[in-house]
Amino acid sequence: MNSLGIHLLLELKDCRIDLLDDLPFIQKTLINAAVSTGATIVGQTFHKFSPQGVTGVVAIAESHLSIHTWPEHGYAAADIFTCGASFNPREAAQIIIEKFECRDPSIVEVERGRLQQVAGVPQ
Amino acid sequence: MNSLGIHLLLELKDCRIDLLDDLPFIQKTLINAAVSTGATIVGQTFHKFSPQGVTGVVAIAESHLSIHTWPEHGYAAADIFTCGASFNPREAAQIIIEKFECRDPSIVEVERGRLQQVAGVPQ
Repeated sequence: MNSLGIHLLLELKDCRIDLLDDLPFIQKTLINAAVSTGATIVGQTFHKFSPQGVTGVVAIAESHLSIHTWPEHGYAAADIFTCGASFNPREAAQIIIEKFECRDPSIVEVERGRLQQVAGVPQ
Repeated sequence: MNSLGIHLLLELKDCRIDLLDDLPFIQKTLINAAVSTGATIVGQTFHKFSPQGVTGVVAIAESHLSIHTWPEHGYAAADIFTCGASFNPREAAQIIIEKFECRDPSIVEVERGRLQQVAGVPQ
């Protein structure tokens, strides 16, 4: 692999709506997805919006997990950005998909920081 | 626009290396990029790694800004995820590019939560 990081963009459609507005559940799910798949948490911030919706980010030694929910659309956008081999982002993605009882998930995988494109800096 | 959010993926190559390891500078830059372009901050977390590298996330009412830096490669991966019209993500991206004195930036723009693809939930 020539990239510094792997970034998974999760489009989580048709989720269980009540879960998308449940901050404690969302916080627990993201933290469990991180820790149980080998990540080391270094920070976190979660926020509940009025009348609905939750934003949450877990900073990990391997980069971050984030989620933004729209309960009114049954939808959440989650991101898993990882570097290094100690953390399995695809396993974390499956945990998040299952926990939100998502019936229409899709994942786009993006390579970040491709080394051969890093200009002007010794490799 | 039919999507709930716009997600900018910034590949910041050939940045000024010392800035990529300066946590106070990185924190100030992300917060200024958010606030000066209309975002409302609801949380933040920053972490300095040893021997080098910084991870930072600013949660905003409009979603989030994040950055992960690799000073050893002169590279940073930044994300600006926004929903709604009150915050201008492209303007925030330009601020970040300029502040890091990035000489080889690229931006990929991704639509998140396209409504016509949200299944099973009334619009």
